[in-house]
Amino acid sequence: MQEISAYTNYIEREIARLDFPLKPSNLYDPLRYFMQLGGKRMRPILTLLGAELFGEQKENAINAALSVETFHNFSLIHDDIMDEAPLRRNQATVHEKWNQNIAILSGDVLFVKAFQLLAKHDSKHLSHLLDLFNKTAIEVCEGQQMDMDFETRTDVSIAEYIEMIRLKTSVLLGCALEMGAIIANATENDKRHLYEFGQNIGIAFQIQDDILDLYADPEKFGKQVGGDVISNKKTLLNLKALELASTQQLEDLKELAIEKDHSKKIIETTQIYNEIKAKEACEAVMQDYYEKAITALNAIEIDQNQKIPLQQLAQYLMQREN
Amino acid sequence: MQEISAYTNYIEREIARLDFPLKPSNLYDPLRYFMQLGGKRMRPILTLLGAELFGEQKENAINAALSVETFHNFSLIHDDIMDEAPLRRNQATVHEKWNQNIAILSGDVLFVKAFQLLAKHDSKHLSHLLDLFNKTAIEVCEGQQMDMDFETRTDVSIAEYIEMIRLKTSVLLGCALEMGAIIANATENDKRHLYEFGQNIGIAFQIQDDILDLYADPEKFGKQVGGDVISNKKTLLNLKALELASTQQLEDLKELAIEKDHSKKIIETTQIYNEIKAKEACEAVMQDYYEKAITALNAIEIDQNQKIPLQQLAQYLMQREN
Repeated sequence: MQEISAYTNYIEREIARLDFPLKPSNLYDPLRYFMQLGGKRMRPILTLLGAELFGEQKENAINAALSVETFHNFSLIHDDIMDEAPLRRNQATVHEKWNQNIAILSGDVLFVKAFQLLAKHDSKHLSHLLDLFNKTAIEVCEGQQMDMDFETRTDVSIAEYIEMIRLKTSVLLGCALEMGAIIANATENDKRHLYEFGQNIGIAFQIQDDILDLYADPEKFGKQVGGDVISNKKTLLNLKALELASTQQLEDLKELAIEKDHSKKIIETTQIYNEIKAKEACEAVMQDYYEKAITALNAIEIDQNQKIPLQQLAQYLMQREN
Repeated sequence: MQEISAYTNYIEREIARLDFPLKPSNLYDPLRYFMQLGGKRMRPILTLLGAELFGEQKENAINAALSVETFHNFSLIHDDIMDEAPLRRNQATVHEKWNQNIAILSGDVLFVKAFQLLAKHDSKHLSHLLDLFNKTAIEVCEGQQMDMDFETRTDVSIAEYIEMIRLKTSVLLGCALEMGAIIANATENDKRHLYEFGQNIGIAFQIQDDILDLYADPEKFGKQVGGDVISNKKTLLNLKALELASTQQLEDLKELAIEKDHSKKIIETTQIYNEIKAKEACEAVMQDYYEKAITALNAIEIDQNQKIPLQQLAQYLMQREN
C-alpha cells in the first residue's frame, strides 16, 4: 500500500479538476467552495482500495470514487440545512454562507454530478454500479430520516440506533468498497464480503465517533469535547448509560439533561457514565463490529498480502484520536 | 393515437404501483401523497409517444416515462420549498403538510427513485438514457437558479427570460420525448429533431402559461387570474410590456407595481398591457416557437401519419384554457 497521503493527494487533484461551470454563479460557487473544504476523503479512498484489492488499477476506479465523494458532499450540504449547522470543517456551511434555497438547489446539482461521474463507467459495469449506488443513496436518506425522528422520541432502542447509523453512515462505506470490486470484476461472494467489511467497519467507526465526542483528548480532537452531551444527542454512549443506570443514576441523568451550566453538565454526566462503565460497554460493541469486519475481510478468497492495505486502514480508523 | 385519457390512465395505474416502503413513514408518506396529486402527466405521455412514433410499444418505455414524472415531482417538492408555496394542485405542499426538512429529504429520495426507474432499462440503452437525463436534470436546476436570481434583478432581458424557461421547463419535455426515441432505437438525426420539437413546444407552452395567467377565462382557469401581476413576477408579458411601453406607461407600471389594491392593480395593468398590445406581442413569440416545433417534427424521417398524435398533442397544448 502506498502511503495514505498518496491516495488523498490523488483524490484532491481529481476533485480540483471537477470543473463546474461559472454560471449561474449562485449555483456553482457553493459547490466549488464546499468540495474544496477537505476532509479525510475516506470514501473515495475505499473505492480505490476496493479495486486494487482485486488487481485493478486505481485510475480505472477514479470516477466511481469521485461519485461516492460527490454524493457524500451532497448529503452533507442537505444535512447541514436540516441540522441548522453553522459550521462544517470549521468553515461556514452553504446555507449560512449563501442561503437555504441555494443550499437545497446546489445540493441537488451535486447529486446529479455524482450520477454523471458514475455514468462515465462502461456499460459492462454501469448497471451494477448504478443499482448499488441507488440502493445506498436511498438507505442514507432513510438513516437521516430515522436520526431526525429520534430527536423527538424517548424510547429509542440500541438496536434501532445501530440500524440508524448503519443506514446513515455505514452502507456508504460498504458501497464505496464494493464499487471498486465491481470495477475489478470480483466474484459475487467476494463483493459481498467486502461490502460486509465496509459496513461493519463503518458501524465501529461511528461508535468510536460517539465515544470520542466525550472522551477525546481536547488537544487533539479539534472541536468541543462533550458536544453531544450538551445537546442531549442520542448516541450509543447515552443509550448504553440509560440501559445500565440505576434508578438514582437515571434521576441524576434526567436532571443533568436540563442543566444550563455546560461545564458542570459535561463533568457530572461523565462521572456517572464512568461509574456505569458506559464507555467500556460501547467499546465492547465497537470491538464486536470491528471483529465482524475482519472476519468478512478474511473470507475474501484472495492472497492475504493483498488485504494488508485494508487491514491497515481499518486499524488506522480504529486508533484515530479525532 | 388512442385518446389521451388512455395514456393518462395507464400512467396513473403505473404510478399507483410504485410501491414506496412503509417506513420511515415521515420519508415515504409524503411521496405517496405527492405522487397521487395528479396533474396532466404530460411528460411521461411524451415519452410513450416518443417511443410509439418510431414503432416501439409504449410498455417498453414505461420505466423511462415514470422516471421523468418522478424527477418532475421531485423538482416540484423542492421548488415549492424555495418558492414558499403553500399549495400545489390545490392541496397542501409537502413542506406545509409535514415540514421543510421532510420536504428536502423526501424530495431527495424521490430523485433517487427516478434513477432506479431509469436503471431498469437494459444496458444497451441505459448509458444514453442516463447521459440525457443527467444533462437535463442539471439544466432544470440551472433554470430554477436563474428564476430565483431574476427576483432581485431589474435588468432581465427577454433573451435571458427565454433561456430561463428553456432550462427550467422546456428541456425536460425534449428529454421526455427523446428518451422514448432512444428506447425505440431512432437515428441520431431523428432524436435531435424530436428533442427540438419538445423543447420548442415547451417554450411556447410556458409563454402561453404567462398569457393565460392574466388573460384566462376565470371560469375555466381554476386559479386566480392575475397572480403574476399581483406578485410582480417577471414573465414574458411583463418584459414585453416594459420593452414596448412609452415613458408615461413605464411610470404608470412602476406605480402599479406597488399598488396595494389587487383588483385595481390587475385592471389597470391589464389596461396598459392592452394599449401596448403586449398580449399580441407574446402570442407572436409563442407562434414563432410553435412553428419551430412543427418544423422540427416535419424533419423527422418517418411516415407523416405516425406524427399525427404529436401534432394533435401540440395543438391541444396550444389551445388549452388552463
